[in-house]
Order: sequence, then structure tokens, then C-alpha cells
Amino acid sequence: MGDLLAAVRPAAQRTPISGIIRTANYGRAKGPGIIPLWAGEGDLPTPRFIAEAAAKALYDGETFYTHSRGIPELREALAGYYETQFGRPFDPDTFFVTGSGMQAIQLCVAMTVGHDEEILIPSPSWPNATGASTVIGANPVAVPMREADGRWVLTVEDLERAMTPKTRAIFVNSPANPTGWTATQEEMEAILAFARANELWIIADEIYSRFIWTGAERAPSFLDIAEPDDRILWVGTFSKNWAMTGWRMGWIHAPLALRQTLENLIQYSTSGTAVFMQRAGVVALTEGEWFVKSMIERARIGRDIVTEALSGRNRVTFAPPDGAFYAFFKVAGLESSQQAAFALIDEASVGTAPGTAFGDIGEGYVRVCFLRSKDSLTEAMQGIVKYLETLG
Amino acid sequence: MGDLLAAVRPAAQRTPISGIIRTANYGRAKGPGIIPLWAGEGDLPTPRFIAEAAAKALYDGETFYTHSRGIPELREALAGYYETQFGRPFDPDTFFVTGSGMQAIQLCVAMTVGHDEEILIPSPSWPNATGASTVIGANPVAVPMREADGRWVLTVEDLERAMTPKTRAIFVNSPANPTGWTATQEEMEAILAFARANELWIIADEIYSRFIWTGAERAPSFLDIAEPDDRILWVGTFSKNWAMTGWRMGWIHAPLALRQTLENLIQYSTSGTAVFMQRAGVVALTEGEWFVKSMIERARIGRDIVTEALSGRNRVTFAPPDGAFYAFFKVAGLESSQQAAFALIDEASVGTAPGTAFGDIGEGYVRVCFLRSKDSLTEAMQGIVKYLETLG
Repeated sequence: MGDLLAAVRPAAQRTPISGIIRTANYGRAKGPGIIPLWAGEGDLPTPRFIAEAAAKALYDGETFYTHSRGIPELREALAGYYETQFGRPFDPDTFFVTGSGMQAIQLCVAMTVGHDEEILIPSPSWPNATGASTVIGANPVAVPMREADGRWVLTVEDLERAMTPKTRAIFVNSPANPTGWTATQEEMEAILAFARANELWIIADEIYSRFIWTGAERAPSFLDIAEPDDRILWVGTFSKNWAMTGWRMGWIHAPLALRQTLENLIQYSTSGTAVFMQRAGVVALTEGEWFVKSMIERARIGRDIVTEALSGRNRVTFAPPDGAFYAFFKVAGLESSQQAAFALIDEASVGTAPGTAFGDIGEGYVRVCFLRSKDSLTEAMQGIVKYLETLG
Repeated sequence: MGDLLAAVRPAAQRTPISGIIRTANYGRAKGPGIIPLWAGEGDLPTPRFIAEAAAKALYDGETFYTHSRGIPELREALAGYYETQFGRPFDPDTFFVTGSGMQAIQLCVAMTVGHDEEILIPSPSWPNATGASTVIGANPVAVPMREADGRWVLTVEDLERAMTPKTRAIFVNSPANPTGWTATQEEMEAILAFARANELWIIADEIYSRFIWTGAERAPSFLDIAEPDDRILWVGTFSKNWAMTGWRMGWIHAPLALRQTLENLIQYSTSGTAVFMQRAGVVALTEGEWFVKSMIERARIGRDIVTEALSGRNRVTFAPPDGAFYAFFKVAGLESSQQAAFALIDEASVGTAPGTAFGDIGEGYVRVCFLRSKDSLTEAMQGIVKYLETLG
């Protein structure tokens, strides 16, 4: 058996297990009764009006192969949604439907970073950007962010220090998972200037842009400052705004010049996304704004609950995040985030993500997703606080 | 614009456009009215009892993240289906649900063939195996098959000639798309012995195994002859047997030792497949045998129609295939398969796949899919024959 594994391509062998998945698998094996705050998803299923569009298309027989880059109706709906968000028209041909935001990231890495080349990933970071790079044979390079007074900071100097002649891209996730770090427009301009000067691609993961707690309508975006010939690829997903995590449907927004190449990459990866799912995507984008607003409000309340539960706690360092829907807090004296995540499942029936899932820099941290009903989240936080008290 | 494309990773730039997709895009742009024989799909939508299972799960709120490698129920159903096919028990943990058979192939290549290493692909071949290899940074090496009396032949000597110290895997598609070539058990044993002797992986694409016209119940399989420690990965799909082409759902069957590595690769590619789709997969596998049989019968009738239409035609060389549901025929004097495919759309309202989509060796050939209703297929073949007559 060991021989078979040894015969596997080294890049595949190197691809790490996700610390989130390891914890979720452990929790799922325990059966129901665990409150799952380990993943980046809420507790609401996809709303009925969106699910119905998929069911209707299924019954209508929309079960055949379709355009690799997505049906025209969905690409038009995406362009319309972006127009609403950014106040200017977008070309539907610059949108590419993918089989998840995850696949969007993998394709963007495959577009930009070759074998033995490097992609800079500010860290702590969602492990899947790192994983996607490893699968492709690229080398992910963690760029450690610094925490000062509970705020995470990423500077151009940090990126510069990590850059080598092999660097091809920067993965910029803002608002960030897990830290909630949200780049200001000035910080984005600095990163863009750095990328331009060094001919690096930016893979912009702004999927949490609507979940922003600074008082703004949405987070700053590279779309506010980019020129048409900038080397930027944006990844998107239906997962968060419309409670469609399980659907595995996302998109890429990319310069028109890359259209055929991206279509080819989609063709040879999954060959497109089910039409009946895309019909639901159209409904989400064109009729789902009220639901997105309710999700944002749900997260706002969740953020308050988590903040109240953690503030003033012995051992805990936590500042409420500027964006996204995660609390990423430090627990003084915690020797193993992973062991703590297992213990929280066993002793408090709460599923969290260990800080180490987001890089070595995350040791000592715990991440919880707070996109959840008041009662369930309150109960979960009571369990967490009680567990923390057992640490003495 | 050109600068942006030039800045793309070379492996992505090299990834070729699919000749099937190029033709289908051309045909789709013409609007309805074209009989589409270009793709490997029939004209029946997914049957209602399968679609209903997905719709029900959607309404039941099964829209959350799930196990990366598939829900236990579907992996158990896959094990049960294999037990029926091969007459012995299978471990559900050796099955991995993927977001299409295409993704199954891409993951298998990612598991076995590294940057600048080689995978042997007997040719003519479905272009996506080649494309998947290129995306990953591997070098696909076409192994030309030979045609004698309309039968395609692949020998171990052909593979040996193509092998280099960089060869890591062989892609074996039997029954084959587009040629219908179906390896006998003896031929499979010879390929397996060759792979063992040279420590090569076999990626076994046996998705057409039920569509067999030699009188056998199913095509010979590497599962009939493999030992547990053989380096073989099997890819599977719901697309063909159950008319689920548009769903994008497939699977891998692989040795247990690779379980964690494959789970990681799925996690960082699409992070799993929608639960509501997987529920439909369970129903297909456990209640869909009557439908599979009706699909096989449909293809059998289609094969007769195509055979009758093409036999004795001036310029045409065609022997009915042993397996799968494609007619791949040679047209003497055809200068460009691609131009002929466009012309057939324009002049005969029939969509075919140009032979060159399956490799340079396919120039002069045309592929049609015959999994289609009698009337529609008869009409399409009349159009094709009429077009061929215009060639003189």
C-alpha cells in the first residue's frame, strides 16, 4: 500500500490535508448534535425561490451539455450584478462560470503560476489557496501578516521581502478569511502599484465584500482602481451571499483577452456547470438582493454575539473584524489549536476551525464562523467560553 | 490585450481549444434546428425519477458543504453497482465522487504525471484527456493506433515505441471514444504487464463498458485482471448510462492507500459535489438499471441506422464499432475535417465532430454520436450522406 502512495506524483503527495476538513471529518463522525462553526457557511439552507429555479430547470430537461464558460443568461446576470455594485457597465464575456469559487481559484493559479514558480499568499490565510497552488505544482509562499492591537496588517514591504525572481502572483483576499482584514483603498493602490512594478498577477478574492463592518456599503475593491490592462483575475462564488455553499458554483471575472484560454481550462477541468444550477444563479443575482441583505444582517448580529462572548475573557485576545464573518481569536497558553478544536467538539459539542489550518502563524488561534442564528450561536459561544475557562 | 495573454502561464497558453467545442460553439451560434451529433450525449433528458431525487433534496435543504470525497450513501451505492457488474464486493472507501468524469481524469493525471513528465494516450482519442494533461503541466504523447480493415489496433509495441524515461502513465479508454476500439482481455493483460514492467500508472477510462456490440454483457475491464497493488486508477461518470451529461458528476475508483491524497486533491479543486446531485446519483445507481438497458438498446438501434446509412457509400470507409456509441468514419478526399464539420452545420443542419478533434491522425475522419431517436438520427444521416454526395 505504501508503495502505491510513494508512486504518486510528488506535487500530489505534498498537497496538505486541510485542517478545517480534518476537524469537520472528526466532528461529522461524532454524528449530529455538534454546532458546526468550522466552515465558512451559515445555518440557513438555500432559500426556496432559488432552489425552485433549479428544480424547475431539472424538470424542464435542462440536463444536457452546455457552454463551457456558462450560459449567456448567467453571464449577463453577473454583468448586471457587477454594474449595480460598481456603478459602471461590464461585458458579459468577461465572466466565466465555474464549478465553485474554489475551482475559480484553482483555474486562476493555473493561468498564472507555473511549475516551481511562486505565489505570495498573505497569512493567516484560507488553506485552499495554498492547496490549489500545490496541486498545480506551484509553490505557495506564505507572507506573514502582523497583528498589532488585534488588527492585522499587510504592507508592501512584507510582500517585497517575500518576493523572488520566481514570483508570479499575489493572492489578495480582502475582506479576509480568517482574520477579517480588509484592505483600504490606499492599501489596495499600494499593492496594485507593487504588482505593476514587478509584473505580478493579482488573484483578487473579494467574495466577502458585502460583509463589511466599517460602515461602508461594500469593501474596497481592485475593480475601483484597476485599468483594463492590469493583470488581475477576480474570483467569485454564489456560496456566501445566497447561502449556496453546497452547490459548488462560482465565477471568474477576467480581461477579455484571456477568454479562449480560460474557456479551454474550464473545458479540461470540469467542462462547465450544470444548466439547472446556472438557472438558480440567475435568480439569485436578479431577485436575491433582499436575501443578501438579510444574510448581512444575520452576520452583523452574529458578530455582536461573538464580540460580547469573547470580550474581557481571561486569556482571549480578540478585536472584532472589519469584514467577513469570522472571529479569529488568540488564546494565551493554547499549545495546540488542533487539539483544542478536537476538545471543543468532544467537550463543548462545538465545531471550530483550528488556527493552524490557516498557516503556522495561526497556532494559538481559534476561528469561528458567526453567520448563524442568535440562539444557536449564543449556545455555541457559551460552550466555547466554558471550555476556555477549563484552561484555567 | 496581447500582452496580457503573453503573461499567462505557458502551460495554460499551450492548452488547446477542443475541436468539438469549436464546432459546437459554431453550431450553437446558428440557433436551434441543428441536429447535434457533435458531443457524446443522447437526445433524452435525465429521466424524471432521477431528477426528482435532486429536486426533493434541494427542497429538503440539502444545500450545505459535505464530505469532499462524497456522501457515504453514494459511495456505498457505487460499491454496490460495481459488485453487480464485477461479481465481487467493493469497499465504499475506494470510491471518490467528482465534479464530472472530466474532473476525475484531471485528478488522476494530477495524481500520477508531474511537470514535464509524459502520459501516453492512444490516438485518435477524446481531446479532453490530452487537454487535462496540458493544464497540469504534463506532456501528453499521442500513440498512433493503426487501422486495418476498419478495425483499430493498439499493440504493446506501439506503447513501447512511444515510451521514454519520462513516461509515468498510460490513458486507456476502452471501449474507446471516438473509434469504438474495445480491448480484449488478452490485450488488457498485455497492457497491464507492460505497465507493471515499466512501473507506469494506468488511467482506465471504461465509461462505455455497458455499450458493447460484440455480444458480451459488458466490455473487458482492468478490474477483471488487476491485483490490489496495481497502479491503476479508474474514472467513472453518470453522464452516459443515465443521461446525466449536463450534471457534471463522476467518480474515481482507486486503491485505498490513495484515499487521503485524493481527498486533498478534490478539496483543493472543487471541494466536493452538491449533496442534492449526489442523492440523484444514488437513485440512478440503485433504481436506474431499466433505464440503462433502454439507453443501450437506443444506441444499438442507432448503430444499425448509421451502419446502413454509411455502408457502400462512395468515399466512405466505415466498420461498425465494437463498443461505445460513435461512428468514426473516413471520407476519402476530405481535405479538412474541421471545414467539413462547419459545412455540415451550414448545409445539412447536422452537427458532427471533426476527426482532427481527436488528434492529427483523425484528419479525413468524421465522428457522429448515434445515441439518438430513430427519426432524428435517420434525418441527420440523410443530411450527412447528401453532403458527402456533393463531394463528388
